[in-house]
Amino acid sequence: MKSNLLEHIHSPKDLRLLNEAQLPELAQELRDFIIDIVSVKEGHLGASLGVVELTIALHYIFNTPEDQLIWDVGHQAYGHKILTGRKEIFHTNRQLNGISGFPKRSESEYDAFGVGHSSTSISAALGMAIASNINGDFEKQHIAVIGDASIASGMAFEGLNHAGVTNANLLVILNDNAIGIDPSVGALKKYLTAVKEGKNPRQNNMIKSLNFNYSGPIDGNDIFAVLKELKRLQKIKGPKFLHVITTKGKGLQQAEENQVQYHAPGKFDPLTGEIIPKSEENLPPKYQDVFGLTILDLAQKNQKIVGITPAMPTGSSLKFMMDAIPERAFDVGIAEQHAVTLAAGMATQGMIVYCNIYSTFLQRAYDQVIHDVALQNLPVIFCLDRAGLVGEDGATHHGIFDIAYLRCIPNLIIYAPANEIALQNILYTAQLGLKNPIAIRYPRGRGSIPNWKKEHFGHYQKIEIGKANSIKTGTEIAVLSNGTIGNNVSAALSEIGNPDAIAHYDFAFIKPLDENQLEAIFEKFKIIITIEDGTVIGGFGSEILEFASQKNYQNTIKTLGIPDLFIEQGTIKELQQLCKIDIDTLKSLFLSYINK
Amino acid sequence: MKSNLLEHIHSPKDLRLLNEAQLPELAQELRDFIIDIVSVKEGHLGASLGVVELTIALHYIFNTPEDQLIWDVGHQAYGHKILTGRKEIFHTNRQLNGISGFPKRSESEYDAFGVGHSSTSISAALGMAIASNINGDFEKQHIAVIGDASIASGMAFEGLNHAGVTNANLLVILNDNAIGIDPSVGALKKYLTAVKEGKNPRQNNMIKSLNFNYSGPIDGNDIFAVLKELKRLQKIKGPKFLHVITTKGKGLQQAEENQVQYHAPGKFDPLTGEIIPKSEENLPPKYQDVFGLTILDLAQKNQKIVGITPAMPTGSSLKFMMDAIPERAFDVGIAEQHAVTLAAGMATQGMIVYCNIYSTFLQRAYDQVIHDVALQNLPVIFCLDRAGLVGEDGATHHGIFDIAYLRCIPNLIIYAPANEIALQNILYTAQLGLKNPIAIRYPRGRGSIPNWKKEHFGHYQKIEIGKANSIKTGTEIAVLSNGTIGNNVSAALSEIGNPDAIAHYDFAFIKPLDENQLEAIFEKFKIIITIEDGTVIGGFGSEILEFASQKNYQNTIKTLGIPDLFIEQGTIKELQQLCKIDIDTLKSLFLSYINK
Repeated sequence: MKSNLLEHIHSPKDLRLLNEAQLPELAQELRDFIIDIVSVKEGHLGASLGVVELTIALHYIFNTPEDQLIWDVGHQAYGHKILTGRKEIFHTNRQLNGISGFPKRSESEYDAFGVGHSSTSISAALGMAIASNINGDFEKQHIAVIGDASIASGMAFEGLNHAGVTNANLLVILNDNAIGIDPSVGALKKYLTAVKEGKNPRQNNMIKSLNFNYSGPIDGNDIFAVLKELKRLQKIKGPKFLHVITTKGKGLQQAEENQVQYHAPGKFDPLTGEIIPKSEENLPPKYQDVFGLTILDLAQKNQKIVGITPAMPTGSSLKFMMDAIPERAFDVGIAEQHAVTLAAGMATQGMIVYCNIYSTFLQRAYDQVIHDVALQNLPVIFCLDRAGLVGEDGATHHGIFDIAYLRCIPNLIIYAPANEIALQNILYTAQLGLKNPIAIRYPRGRGSIPNWKKEHFGHYQKIEIGKANSIKTGTEIAVLSNGTIGNNVSAALSEIGNPDAIAHYDFAFIKPLDENQLEAIFEKFKIIITIEDGTVIGGFGSEILEFASQKNYQNTIKTLGIPDLFIEQGTIKELQQLCKIDIDTLKSLFLSYINK
Repeated sequence: MKSNLLEHIHSPKDLRLLNEAQLPELAQELRDFIIDIVSVKEGHLGASLGVVELTIALHYIFNTPEDQLIWDVGHQAYGHKILTGRKEIFHTNRQLNGISGFPKRSESEYDAFGVGHSSTSISAALGMAIASNINGDFEKQHIAVIGDASIASGMAFEGLNHAGVTNANLLVILNDNAIGIDPSVGALKKYLTAVKEGKNPRQNNMIKSLNFNYSGPIDGNDIFAVLKELKRLQKIKGPKFLHVITTKGKGLQQAEENQVQYHAPGKFDPLTGEIIPKSEENLPPKYQDVFGLTILDLAQKNQKIVGITPAMPTGSSLKFMMDAIPERAFDVGIAEQHAVTLAAGMATQGMIVYCNIYSTFLQRAYDQVIHDVALQNLPVIFCLDRAGLVGEDGATHHGIFDIAYLRCIPNLIIYAPANEIALQNILYTAQLGLKNPIAIRYPRGRGSIPNWKKEHFGHYQKIEIGKANSIKTGTEIAVLSNGTIGNNVSAALSEIGNPDAIAHYDFAFIKPLDENQLEAIFEKFKIIITIEDGTVIGGFGSEILEFASQKNYQNTIKTLGIPDLFIEQGTIKELQQLCKIDIDTLKSLFLSYINK
């Protein structure tokens, strides 16, 4: 029998009308609701299942939204969204114009702070708590729920280190399930495991050393235990820390047993948990697998090759190398800053280091790219996965700033492959004694060459650094692209019959520019159109404008890319339409130029 | 009697020829040498005096440069430089074409890793140590010397957290003097103090929890104690941690007693330590003091105002507010990421937060600016101190990327005041209910208005957001500047008789652009010259190019700014000459246009 209690809960006020004895039943209903929707609509499953009891208990005990509740990262906040007035629209999760997959201030007053990237919750909650003190409100509670992978990130430590010397009404809840997206790593994780297992130190002295009132560990899937402890902590002033043990995927056996796969499993059978297989026959490979297979192959042939990922072994497919050559492939946890400088340190000793970081997360290590890598001109190879629009993860995760923020850094080469072959060839080229650091940006998802693995994998060709390529000749207009967005250009041109007027060039090297090719283009074509899967401000288009200005060219230049707005979630195709870089918009644009 | 031992030491090989009993004498000579040079040539004094014994002991015991020695930040590395072949050129420290104030790989094989920004040493040394393992070298030592202020930064924690689960030959030496540039803060500092004072926990369990072999604390100014411990640790494999207590400024009484002032005291009497006062009469104020006095004044009138600095209370002059209103002004330690998200959290509760971060250090919190502030459109006020070329601190510290890396972020206002009055007025304007975050960038050092404090301070005027101003009219050429580099333009124009042909506009708002003014300019002037104290790639000049492209203007545009190179140390004037944005170069340029 489905949902009796849940259907009457439209906000935490309704929740608080229940008696405690009813809460386990509500937990079951909430779990079923999450499973039912996510099994069809897809999304992040495991984390939210693990914190069902904690979610109910927090809203039951604390006076949300006056009390400020922050979910670190936010993968685990589905139950929170459902209990705070978004049950009816939860099926629009992660869709265009639907609700965000993450807590978001503009979506609900219960979402105290927008999240997406990890380890921000302690700092944000502390800021709120200090503000409450200044505002003379000493009753208000400020709660950060943070996972054991996120708390090991440096930013979380900075927050704890500050909080410990304040009298802020801050409650940090460590949701310890020993896993982020992949299993947690590092010395802190090892220590927390010892604490959990009752080994010495029985209690968490590390947290106590930071001046926190520590309690736990308690079973976070035992709702009565959680309620009891939250009630006690509610009365204590100052910084508090509660260590809660939960099981990721709790309540769905397969999700408990295969926690990595069920982090975001796609469609599955809500009763059995069985994942519904997608037909992958004849599909082009994922760029992630092109990276993963290629680096493994290269590393098997070259003993100097090292791979680094900050907590994304599965997502990046570095896992292939980690499984085969564990002594040269490292998951350093959610520690982008460390990852980059670690890579720099290795490079000083002659290692060829592939440091794979999602474009959006490289923002976390921007200073290290400048200060530790580029300034010393160490030839670290940055593999910027999920560059460009990423789709359903939305505004927090689009990798659209990288061209702009990397292009101003001296010494750095920037390359965006147009397809799987170009990606494998630049990965190959990068280990042939490159003298500069390089950033290789490629998108989330599948490429365009179904037979890549069978026909191209391993057939390496060296790429000439800084060379642009002609894709299609033309007479009047030159379209300059870089990366896979160039495929939209090719498709648009093809669909309008490959008009003679329009030429298309692949400027895969965003930096250094192929100035010879560019001069020839400026001499020949009156109109130049640039397109990129990144911010139009400061990006590749601006670089072409800078070139034209330096060389005193007066050609008409039109720059296409992501406009000066935060782009929300949707399919990549929908978002490209919004940004006017989709195939149809390009077709119209090209036709308008031809028909002028 | 001066230097007998030191004069024979041209490298650590010579040092190792001494017997241990001679080392205290060498320490005295090294200290005298540092004091003698720095008293005349200026530079960072206190940190290097504190580690004289540690420096000698490290090079005496370890086999540098094969063993890799990294000095975190590098303020303390003067002794290291002097002992490693740079004694004769040490007087060129921090000068144009001289040696860098920081360790630098291209300068010496003994500088294992270039430093300047804090907390990189553990990650870099760990990378080297892992590389040595991969290279089959299990004897090589990898040593990071890190201060107690730097180790509290998140990045250092990330390095420790990773190192603790490796078998890397890593020795982390905590140089604990309880002070960075300003006194250290935070819960970890409190804990370390307890350890030092012999309070429970006697030994450093926190470090042990991270799986390190911990030893200490020992007296780092007792050279025999240090030698003994280093010899012991040299034989131990895996990650080791030595806690060393030193006194910043050791050996110069005034420097020991006034550690903040003697961090970099300017010229002083080498015998008495007495600082030689600079004649400051009739000098314009430092921008830092304009900030410090103004925020204090505003905060006294507006209870919602909060100030935040990550470890630069003195440098930024937030100290004025911290002293007067400690409950609303916070030094959060070297924790830029935390500082920004803390500010965002406060802003959600209606606080008006001035987050003062040096431009070069905001690179550390780039993701937080995007993800926690701009995406949520929280009206945090970023005060970017030391924007543009900073002079003697050199390549690691120039604040020249900020326009490029901030301009691509939606929602963010960017403003660069031309002088002290503009700075105080934008600080005033920012607390009048701004709906967007704003970044205010201003340079290191003195302004241009000697009587600012007497005649202008406190006479606030609201600035219209997005409005550019005409500084000088003209007929043919328009020069568009932002920030204080505009004063070079004015001076150059003045020195060539304020030619009628050249107009000058102050585009203090880099974003949003004053499009109306700009359209009028593009309609009127054939030639447009932009100038900025930042990278010419992706900066203000590019923005003007983007505008022209969007509006189909064909005017000739010349962009001036920092070229695509890392700029080393020198006076600001010298560096401006290198970058061709100094007054003389501008004069020649303007004349060349007029005479065309």
